[in-house]
Amino acid sequence: MTKKVWGGRFRERINEVVDSFNSSIRYDRRLYTQDIEGSIAHCRMLAKQGIISEEEALLITDGLADIKREMDRGETAFDEDNEDIHTLVENALVDKIGRLGEKIHTGRSRNDQVALDFRMYVREASKKADSLIKGIQQVFVELGEKNFDLIMPGYTHLQPAQPVLLTHHLLAYFEMFKRDRQRFADSSVRINVLPLGSAALGGTTFNIDRRMVAEELDFDTISDNSIDAVSDRDFVLEYLFNSSVLMMHMSRLSEELIIWSSVEFGLVNLPEAFCTGSSIMPQKKNPDVLELVRGKTGRVYGNLMAFLTTMKSLPLAYNKDMQEDKESLFDTADSVEQCLVVMTMLLREISFNAKNMKRACEKGYLMATDLADYLVTKGMTFRKAHEIVGEIVLFAIDKEKGLKELTLKELKGFADQITKDVFDWLEPASALARRVQHGATSPEMVKQALEKAKEEVAS
Amino acid sequence: MTKKVWGGRFRERINEVVDSFNSSIRYDRRLYTQDIEGSIAHCRMLAKQGIISEEEALLITDGLADIKREMDRGETAFDEDNEDIHTLVENALVDKIGRLGEKIHTGRSRNDQVALDFRMYVREASKKADSLIKGIQQVFVELGEKNFDLIMPGYTHLQPAQPVLLTHHLLAYFEMFKRDRQRFADSSVRINVLPLGSAALGGTTFNIDRRMVAEELDFDTISDNSIDAVSDRDFVLEYLFNSSVLMMHMSRLSEELIIWSSVEFGLVNLPEAFCTGSSIMPQKKNPDVLELVRGKTGRVYGNLMAFLTTMKSLPLAYNKDMQEDKESLFDTADSVEQCLVVMTMLLREISFNAKNMKRACEKGYLMATDLADYLVTKGMTFRKAHEIVGEIVLFAIDKEKGLKELTLKELKGFADQITKDVFDWLEPASALARRVQHGATSPEMVKQALEKAKEEVAS
Amino acid sequence: MTKKVWGGRFRERINEVVDSFNSSIRYDRRLYTQDIEGSIAHCRMLAKQGIISEEEALLITDGLADIKREMDRGETAFDEDNEDIHTLVENALVDKIGRLGEKIHTGRSRNDQVALDFRMYVREASKKADSLIKGIQQVFVELGEKNFDLIMPGYTHLQPAQPVLLTHHLLAYFEMFKRDRQRFADSSVRINVLPLGSAALGGTTFNIDRRMVAEELDFDTISDNSIDAVSDRDFVLEYLFNSSVLMMHMSRLSEELIIWSSVEFGLVNLPEAFCTGSSIMPQKKNPDVLELVRGKTGRVYGNLMAFLTTMKSLPLAYNKDMQEDKESLFDTADSVEQCLVVMTMLLREISFNAKNMKRACEKGYLMATDLADYLVTKGMTFRKAHEIVGEIVLFAIDKEKGLKELTLKELKGFADQITKDVFDWLEPASALARRVQHGATSPEMVKQALEKAKEEVAS
Amino acid sequence: MTKKVWGGRFRERINEVVDSFNSSIRYDRRLYTQDIEGSIAHCRMLAKQGIISEEEALLITDGLADIKREMDRGETAFDEDNEDIHTLVENALVDKIGRLGEKIHTGRSRNDQVALDFRMYVREASKKADSLIKGIQQVFVELGEKNFDLIMPGYTHLQPAQPVLLTHHLLAYFEMFKRDRQRFADSSVRINVLPLGSAALGGTTFNIDRRMVAEELDFDTISDNSIDAVSDRDFVLEYLFNSSVLMMHMSRLSEELIIWSSVEFGLVNLPEAFCTGSSIMPQKKNPDVLELVRGKTGRVYGNLMAFLTTMKSLPLAYNKDMQEDKESLFDTADSVEQCLVVMTMLLREISFNAKNMKRACEKGYLMATDLADYLVTKGMTFRKAHEIVGEIVLFAIDKEKGLKELTLKELKGFADQITKDVFDWLEPASALARRVQHGATSPEMVKQALEKAKEEVAS
Repeated sequence: MTKKVWGGRFRERINEVVDSFNSSIRYDRRLYTQDIEGSIAHCRMLAKQGIISEEEALLITDGLADIKREMDRGETAFDEDNEDIHTLVENALVDKIGRLGEKIHTGRSRNDQVALDFRMYVREASKKADSLIKGIQQVFVELGEKNFDLIMPGYTHLQPAQPVLLTHHLLAYFEMFKRDRQRFADSSVRINVLPLGSAALGGTTFNIDRRMVAEELDFDTISDNSIDAVSDRDFVLEYLFNSSVLMMHMSRLSEELIIWSSVEFGLVNLPEAFCTGSSIMPQKKNPDVLELVRGKTGRVYGNLMAFLTTMKSLPLAYNKDMQEDKESLFDTADSVEQCLVVMTMLLREISFNAKNMKRACEKGYLMATDLADYLVTKGMTFRKAHEIVGEIVLFAIDKEKGLKELTLKELKGFADQITKDVFDWLEPASALARRVQHGATSPEMVKQALEKAKEEVAS
Repeated sequence: MTKKVWGGRFRERINEVVDSFNSSIRYDRRLYTQDIEGSIAHCRMLAKQGIISEEEALLITDGLADIKREMDRGETAFDEDNEDIHTLVENALVDKIGRLGEKIHTGRSRNDQVALDFRMYVREASKKADSLIKGIQQVFVELGEKNFDLIMPGYTHLQPAQPVLLTHHLLAYFEMFKRDRQRFADSSVRINVLPLGSAALGGTTFNIDRRMVAEELDFDTISDNSIDAVSDRDFVLEYLFNSSVLMMHMSRLSEELIIWSSVEFGLVNLPEAFCTGSSIMPQKKNPDVLELVRGKTGRVYGNLMAFLTTMKSLPLAYNKDMQEDKESLFDTADSVEQCLVVMTMLLREISFNAKNMKRACEKGYLMATDLADYLVTKGMTFRKAHEIVGEIVLFAIDKEKGLKELTLKELKGFADQITKDVFDWLEPASALARRVQHGATSPEMVKQALEKAKEEVAS
Repeated sequence: MTKKVWGGRFRERINEVVDSFNSSIRYDRRLYTQDIEGSIAHCRMLAKQGIISEEEALLITDGLADIKREMDRGETAFDEDNEDIHTLVENALVDKIGRLGEKIHTGRSRNDQVALDFRMYVREASKKADSLIKGIQQVFVELGEKNFDLIMPGYTHLQPAQPVLLTHHLLAYFEMFKRDRQRFADSSVRINVLPLGSAALGGTTFNIDRRMVAEELDFDTISDNSIDAVSDRDFVLEYLFNSSVLMMHMSRLSEELIIWSSVEFGLVNLPEAFCTGSSIMPQKKNPDVLELVRGKTGRVYGNLMAFLTTMKSLPLAYNKDMQEDKESLFDTADSVEQCLVVMTMLLREISFNAKNMKRACEKGYLMATDLADYLVTKGMTFRKAHEIVGEIVLFAIDKEKGLKELTLKELKGFADQITKDVFDWLEPASALARRVQHGATSPEMVKQALEKAKEEVAS
Repeated sequence: MTKKVWGGRFRERINEVVDSFNSSIRYDRRLYTQDIEGSIAHCRMLAKQGIISEEEALLITDGLADIKREMDRGETAFDEDNEDIHTLVENALVDKIGRLGEKIHTGRSRNDQVALDFRMYVREASKKADSLIKGIQQVFVELGEKNFDLIMPGYTHLQPAQPVLLTHHLLAYFEMFKRDRQRFADSSVRINVLPLGSAALGGTTFNIDRRMVAEELDFDTISDNSIDAVSDRDFVLEYLFNSSVLMMHMSRLSEELIIWSSVEFGLVNLPEAFCTGSSIMPQKKNPDVLELVRGKTGRVYGNLMAFLTTMKSLPLAYNKDMQEDKESLFDTADSVEQCLVVMTMLLREISFNAKNMKRACEKGYLMATDLADYLVTKGMTFRKAHEIVGEIVLFAIDKEKGLKELTLKELKGFADQITKDVFDWLEPASALARRVQHGATSPEMVKQALEKAKEEVAS
């Protein structure tokens, strides 16, 4: 067992099972970049403030840079004997430059150090999420441009509702992802607060310069309360929540594509390279990727719930329970990133089945609302028109006909106001053309929305 | 059973059990103000656009205003026969002014109407939360001012760590609540988007003016995609999450006060009027309020998890599942508001037990870090000093003495650098005075923080 | 404010806001039957043990019976001034028979009383769930009998997999519900433990007879540890979990029926009386009931998570946090019962669309596995056969033909072993007939399973 | 990339990112023992049924046994090119014995194979949990025996309530853990059902003998419905829930020990070898192990919530989402096992602080209930006695005295019935002695309970 950084007061060595139970090095080794960068900035500040000498600082920062290079090259054994990455880095430093290395811990504690490292990590993860979401937004723009002429049945309750432009439907996802990015951006303001200098919980007695460190590490501001700084994990929860909503959006997208790629719907063709077969059923082409994205929603929700639960009722300031922040975040970041990457790739390769989409628009009495609107233009109240069209639909179902297949005479039987112009009116394209409000599904408005979307994600 | 707004296409009446199962009037009656205000704004716009006449508009808006007044006065029977508040209001309007009342639904659908009403409600609830949180922040400022001279043991792992100003500890909560308010504010940008005009999912064919309605109802902007507008409930999830983090903070506060008010800790006196007794144990004075706040954290988390689950995998656009948004939000809003109100009142009445706080500062070897820092000022590395102080603490425990009760000779036995000035150094007050970094616990810095906090919440 | 049962030690009256916050009468009034029955049994025992006289007991039990009758008839005002149902009942008793009524509380505390009442309630709710689940199982048997001749495409990944008997698919739900009932039964053993006699936490000093009370109230056994008895809420969590799994099953059923009743699948016709329309789209017939059942799954999960969270980290014995057990359970019981009732009614009225089902079986290359099996009967390894059939499927897709529509020559092009008998082999019915293992989908086995199921739920 | 088991129908190779995304070999390699044992049993049955020859079977089972030995010895590279453990084992078999190896997959599918393997794993994990819980129960018995004479303040609401035997308190945990074991046992009935033979979803066409396999693999029974058998994951959820309740119990225990080991309570001494220090505060001895156990409760809850969410709304039969079952279960099993092991070890080493416990019993007016009971023995109603004792307590608090420190005269001032015998009555030990009901805290009853407990966990 490697030396602990807290030995003196203990008569007994820590139990080995306990040591392994407490240890976080298995997963917090991910933080080595953040830990070393943080230490380098801290060290420079210590020198500038005269707490250590410039020579000492140089030796320390060089040593740390070496260690980082070795880790980058995969040369370091992340020895389980070190209880965490902070201990490991410090021990490696002492191995390299002798007991001088211990001075790196002057004026800080693991409580503020871990908060620093983790904030840097979550900041990075948020940026990465933002960039990947932007990538998926770009694909929606591309798909929207490429398929601009396709009309699909808009669904509510999974029942055909009204014809909409496929592009309009795709841009609904653009909007969801836009909000996702806003949330990550909003949270970044609260992430980007330097906790270092809070020490164990009450601040340090050394004459440090917190603002200098903040500047070096690109933090917007420094924390205002040292107790809060070491006991706050709101930024972790925000990342977990933002990811949960993002995954909820992805699960809706997955669900739609799974249903649309069913043999029965047949609206979309999934790329073979993103599907898998069956060990027993030779015909199978399963949308595994989409199912897995949908399934991983549970996992991300679970991570949010896990850490909310962990934080409940913890007295101030730091408690070891809070060590559980890392695995749930790492797992979430991995899941979110993988799902975004794979979904973006998949979307790039899908194609829509124009023929089936057209056929679907002819089923399901999609034009019923427009028929009612037609009657309103002829002077009826909407409620009355709605009722009459309901009856027409019933009649048509019984005849196994679509609305446009009814004769003028049949239609007039329900409302004498109906004239020949009704058949043009009942074309899906004319239904779209009539919806010209901001945000509505007319080609004109969707074109505008598409242009705006394109601009927003132009890199 | 009252008339449905969607009768024509159906041959059979809805099953009564189903009707009651589907019905939301039991709880969405809460939205009557929003529903009527939204309808009035919609109606005025319809008139301005010439879709209905000014006379019609006047009759409708007068009728709606009447209905609202009756509801405000509690005169309305919220009849279960109406499936939701929107139907009820419209039916009441038709009762009052005849079939003209049906025109209010021109150019909108329940899908965009319910989204509008609920956004208005959540906007209001967010403002209320903000204002109540500000109220609790103010109490922390007052408590901080009133108890500025008290020094308490700062804890980590519920073990004494270092002395801190009680006010510093209290201001840690101020910071948490500040972030809570920021989150509600961030979310309000996404709440404050007018969905009306999206109709069922694809927009309306009527020549409406969405921006006019937005202005009347004080919305910052209008939604950009009609499909998204009727299927988006992110704003609900954000409220639930913001509330969950808020409750997490309240649970930490409750936990601390429960522990501090235990006979063993005895740091705080809870006001009798906020405690309850036992039906069997006559001596009992239980911190029920705090326990209930802590317990309700579970409920708010549960509501978040409930609605995240409900939204998972729903295809676009509207699905009936989404009706489950309301009860979880209402219950959360009620819980959060009650907890904030009662906690604010309680905090106003608590007093701290200065004697016990002082005694607690003498136990637990709180000054050990400072003793190590002292050795560093005498030229030792911190790691070495830490080790030696660990041994001194062990020695003192065996002697059943505090650090300050050790003799100079005993101390020198461990480190010859220790001189007489150590005893002044070991005063808690001098430990505080040495922590002068921004955010640290020295009276000087805490005073600054307190002033800044006070300004922030000055109304 | 009504008299508290714990006044003496308090100088101040409880704050009114606090009183309302703490109060549980709004929802625990549901427990009045249990509370009164428990009190009657307790009272009889007190008399038998000579702790009160027979005359006193008679007056008390008569008084309690009166109160119950009044409550049954809805004559009681459940006055908010009473903090809980236990206080209300006792106060009502004292109102009726004078201070003698106070003796009912001899030898017990609210801590064991509330545990008793709630166990009785959850026991009842479990029985009700069991009976309703049995009801839905019966409908699956009926549906299975009625539609025994229908063959449907079995799906995996929502892609057609192999033909199966519709009845076989329906019986899969029978199995799920069977496990649900087992879980409720398993839990009932742990519910059915009498806590009364544990008093506040350490037992009572009165010479009570706990086993007599257990017998009167039909409890299997009495609790073995008084501290555990008042702090245990496992039985609540079990009910919440059992309900969560039940709802998960119901959500799968709902999802399937929603997809099957889409225009594109068209496998099932939902009864009109269980669907709703749209206020704007006259053609709509939406599966609202199914969506709402699916949506309520979130709510039940949320209740489980809520109370798991609440119970986390509570020290022994009773804490006020535990009062949060009731609303989550009541809401769960209501949701589960409503969903079961309405789903059972709906299932009774659905009909399957034989024509579409047949057509669906002809699409999707459902017989591919059987074609591979065919090749195995001709001596090929399964892996090889699988590969070749994969190629045949590809060929058929390109030709836009089904497997059976390929010519013998075309088939022989892939594997010379194929002979004319392949066409009979490729009939869905013959595929079913070949699957004769226990639990498999041949009519023979499904008939057996149906008979067994029928017996199990025969009342 | 290694050969897929489902190649033929695909023109394009799977995308590499997708392949890695879909792959489960990283974690399902844990199932290799189960997979191979299952395959061996399946293979023997195939031979017995004449589906393969005895010679073939021998070659296959020998090959599989070899592979297992290699894996046991850590010689196998769990190559990421194999999408899952089933593919890897089969590929390894083919490498070893040629294409004959492919025959192992005759009459089964991955859908029933993975269900089999995972059931075997969960069965094992449940047994392990049971055995570890029994171990911790044994420690409670030992602690109870060793500390039988200690009286502690029983708490409710973390306020002193009544004196109880420490052993009585410890046995409350024994009861909780007993229920945990019952739940694992109940679930094992539902785990122990053989799904093999269900093939993809409809059963196999091969003449297999499912009962023979069940017997070989020690399954109690075989599944009754093949569709259910491949789509059921209730057994996973049950394990996750049982673990959640177990962790809830452990969190309560942890919380108590953390509070009891605070300097202020000082009721328990934690073994040094199970505590850790601080890198900055030399005096620190933190209960990290207990905090981490408490914190991991969140993680286990999260895993339950994750998989409940994943399973929601999945249509039958198998969907790829269900692959998410494994990591949440593995992580839960690891967490639960670690926590049980480390907690058991810790408990073995703790000691109670008799002096502080005695002192704590003298504070907090623990004997107030008994004083009320005393007055009842003198003829007062309990409600009246309760009120008077409340006033006595108030008086004593003002005097800063304990109840026993009041003079007889002072006591008589409140109730003339009080006589000299009250002082004996007010001894904690006599309070215990008076509680002689089954399950109560008298030494006599606790002794009985301890004996019973001891017997139950005697190995």
